[in-house]
Amino acid sequence: MRAYDVIKKKRDGGELSEEQIRFMVDGFTKGDIPDYQMSAWLMAVYYMGMSAEETFALTKTMTESGDRLDLSGISGIKVDKHSTGGVGDKTTFIVGPLLAALGVPVAKMSGKGLGHTGGTIDKLACIPGFNVELAQKDFIKNVNDIGMAIASQTGNLAPADKKIYALRDVTTTVDSIPLIASSIMSKKLASGADIIVLDVKCGSGAFMKDFEGAIALAKTMTDIGQLYGKPTHALVTDMDEPLGHMVGNSLELKEAVRVLSLKDVRAAVAEDRGLARLVEVCVKLTTVSLMLAEKARSLEDKAVLADIGVDPERIAGYEARVIEAIENGSGLAKLAEVVERQGGDKDYILHPEKLPVAPVRVPVKASTDGYLTACRAEEVGMTNLILGGGRATKESAIDVTVGAELLRCLGEPVKKDQPFAYIYAAGDKPEVIDEAVRRLTGAYEISAVNTAEKRLTTPVVMEYI
Amino acid sequence: MRAYDVIKKKRDGGELSEEQIRFMVDGFTKGDIPDYQMSAWLMAVYYMGMSAEETFALTKTMTESGDRLDLSGISGIKVDKHSTGGVGDKTTFIVGPLLAALGVPVAKMSGKGLGHTGGTIDKLACIPGFNVELAQKDFIKNVNDIGMAIASQTGNLAPADKKIYALRDVTTTVDSIPLIASSIMSKKLASGADIIVLDVKCGSGAFMKDFEGAIALAKTMTDIGQLYGKPTHALVTDMDEPLGHMVGNSLELKEAVRVLSLKDVRAAVAEDRGLARLVEVCVKLTTVSLMLAEKARSLEDKAVLADIGVDPERIAGYEARVIEAIENGSGLAKLAEVVERQGGDKDYILHPEKLPVAPVRVPVKASTDGYLTACRAEEVGMTNLILGGGRATKESAIDVTVGAELLRCLGEPVKKDQPFAYIYAAGDKPEVIDEAVRRLTGAYEISAVNTAEKRLTTPVVMEYI
Repeated sequence: MRAYDVIKKKRDGGELSEEQIRFMVDGFTKGDIPDYQMSAWLMAVYYMGMSAEETFALTKTMTESGDRLDLSGISGIKVDKHSTGGVGDKTTFIVGPLLAALGVPVAKMSGKGLGHTGGTIDKLACIPGFNVELAQKDFIKNVNDIGMAIASQTGNLAPADKKIYALRDVTTTVDSIPLIASSIMSKKLASGADIIVLDVKCGSGAFMKDFEGAIALAKTMTDIGQLYGKPTHALVTDMDEPLGHMVGNSLELKEAVRVLSLKDVRAAVAEDRGLARLVEVCVKLTTVSLMLAEKARSLEDKAVLADIGVDPERIAGYEARVIEAIENGSGLAKLAEVVERQGGDKDYILHPEKLPVAPVRVPVKASTDGYLTACRAEEVGMTNLILGGGRATKESAIDVTVGAELLRCLGEPVKKDQPFAYIYAAGDKPEVIDEAVRRLTGAYEISAVNTAEKRLTTPVVMEYI
Repeated sequence: MRAYDVIKKKRDGGELSEEQIRFMVDGFTKGDIPDYQMSAWLMAVYYMGMSAEETFALTKTMTESGDRLDLSGISGIKVDKHSTGGVGDKTTFIVGPLLAALGVPVAKMSGKGLGHTGGTIDKLACIPGFNVELAQKDFIKNVNDIGMAIASQTGNLAPADKKIYALRDVTTTVDSIPLIASSIMSKKLASGADIIVLDVKCGSGAFMKDFEGAIALAKTMTDIGQLYGKPTHALVTDMDEPLGHMVGNSLELKEAVRVLSLKDVRAAVAEDRGLARLVEVCVKLTTVSLMLAEKARSLEDKAVLADIGVDPERIAGYEARVIEAIENGSGLAKLAEVVERQGGDKDYILHPEKLPVAPVRVPVKASTDGYLTACRAEEVGMTNLILGGGRATKESAIDVTVGAELLRCLGEPVKKDQPFAYIYAAGDKPEVIDEAVRRLTGAYEISAVNTAEKRLTTPVVMEYI
């Protein structure tokens, strides 16, 4: 077999065999196929796409290129919730503890973030003493003991994906549904969970800008998971504006604690649209994960796991239990317990005012009366990056205390010269503050006519797959 | 400027500026832009194409990437005839001497061939003593003294094209009209001729398999030449079967001498379709070149050179002069003079039976009665490569004496168990002969119904641009 022929076949729109895909991926990973041939192939895939069979073969090959985590030491059905990346996404800190509180084991491996905010691991660095470097043995023991652990990703998961992603990143071949789907799923499948629940973001702050693209990505990923024999479901959720009010590392953790502290969820969300958007996504993700885990647990024959699905008639019952786990404080207590167990100071969770926030708060004011009608959510993320809260390269240090607080959602009114947002900055560089204010101001459109009014009542969860 | 942004713009179908194209090409040539980004860009160009302006900018940048030959020391209007590569193409040995005999200076720089046959330089290696390594000074003096010289290409012409071509060759990005056109034209424009006449081959033995593609390539190249200020014209000629009877290095030179030795062109071609096809292409190429050179010579203002064209009403007069230069032997005498001047033995031209031919002649027989109705001309070329007459890599040595003789053209009858072709082989490896016979047999289709009859009277020159 020659790389030339495989590239040509894909260039001409042919369907590659699993053997041909394995030849390209393994050859490139081992260094036998040069990067210039791989990048030509990736660009051909960008234009010609991949069939379901090709996408699955690519995922499988990348999954098998490295370690696969063995979580069999954890009793129970492990659900892995994964979001495809958006702005202000703090769902992990809410969904994880709620699931654990409801008896579903949560074994969360996470990486450092690269992009406009830090990742889960960076956000936890706000809590003094919190240890993310758990040995595999301790990680498993913690989950068995208290139902949840969060650790920095260890092992060499899907190294083929890592090498291919680095090449895609510099050759403009990232935006391809089969390549995105296989990249995400290869890591998920190597991570050892029994069930995968995906939160596929859709909109200006997401990979997928439009609904059709997000649906296609979600379907591609769930198909991969099912073919691999892991029940995989996805919610497509709105990311045309950030999720919740807070963007930034400690600010996002603070907001997660706020959600887990709600005493009356329905009342709280009725009067706060930003909070409501965040709560809706978290509750739905937890509900679906809980339902799938309990259904799977009840199966005698684990081989039929792939056939389980969400039962629409029974979903309300699961959702009520999730909301109860918020209102009775068991989710918050679980998060505090995880922090304590991993060496952190649980007071940062129980008294979130202790979480560090950058000292300089600067209002971002509306230039005119009107309504927020459009948001370039990625630009809001960029505001945080500019302030020092995100990583431009893997080596960058980040300031977890900076970020933005968004007072208004799309469809809500703003008043001339009144703040619609704040930024939180270190304050040592005035030009950074100026630039951050400019970016955040420019991220929103204000119009006299409220063309975004519908968004105030439209569900944030756009589709269930 | 970043390579990433230029790749993305082309990926999304945008039109690149000259500055962006120069950034990519110069950056890659200097090594600042890595090959994996260049190959992604080339694949994007493969799919999205290039506008006339982009193609011209690419050509210009590659032309300017290296030396440009200065032929100003040669008096007169220099015409450079270039064929885009086919099977059995020996037109250079016929057109060159005829033009020189008719007073048009021919300064031919040529490379070694890569592919199914050798190039012009390889074919000349059949003649003992012939020196192709001329210093620039001697090359120019020879043209001024006797009207023609043929030398191995010196200097560093279009090194950007060389580097890009090498990458295209391994990333399946060769078959792109703007990339083919700019590659050919960058070398032609750097070669210093005043007028360029292109022979764009079309059919199963050519880059361009179909008429529309060949027309598009021809137009793209002539547009580039005109934009650069060099009158450039093209003939699109049939390459659905080899040109003439002979394929192989010394065999092709022998056939060229045969054409230059014809005493009655019309009579000869009337009874020999294979010969007629070759003569037609050579006569038309010479006629157009002669007309353009003489028209250009008559112009007082050389700035209007770009506007000259072929004058259909006067073409017959030029053509008669070309045929006369064959029939009165002046073309043959010119070729002999060139050979002698460059140290070769002119007896090999005047007595072409001296040209070396491989010792073993093997008939290739028809399996059934019928007509030759289709030819995969590239396979005929492969026959010569298998016999040792072509180069698989730049370093390969070639046997100039081997090849194939095609007794019949498409549309002509064949008889069961009678030869329709011969192969000429060294004879030391029987398995090579078997394979060559198999390839040549398989290259032709024989049918009871003569679906190719029309080809016996259809002009070989399909279009003039």
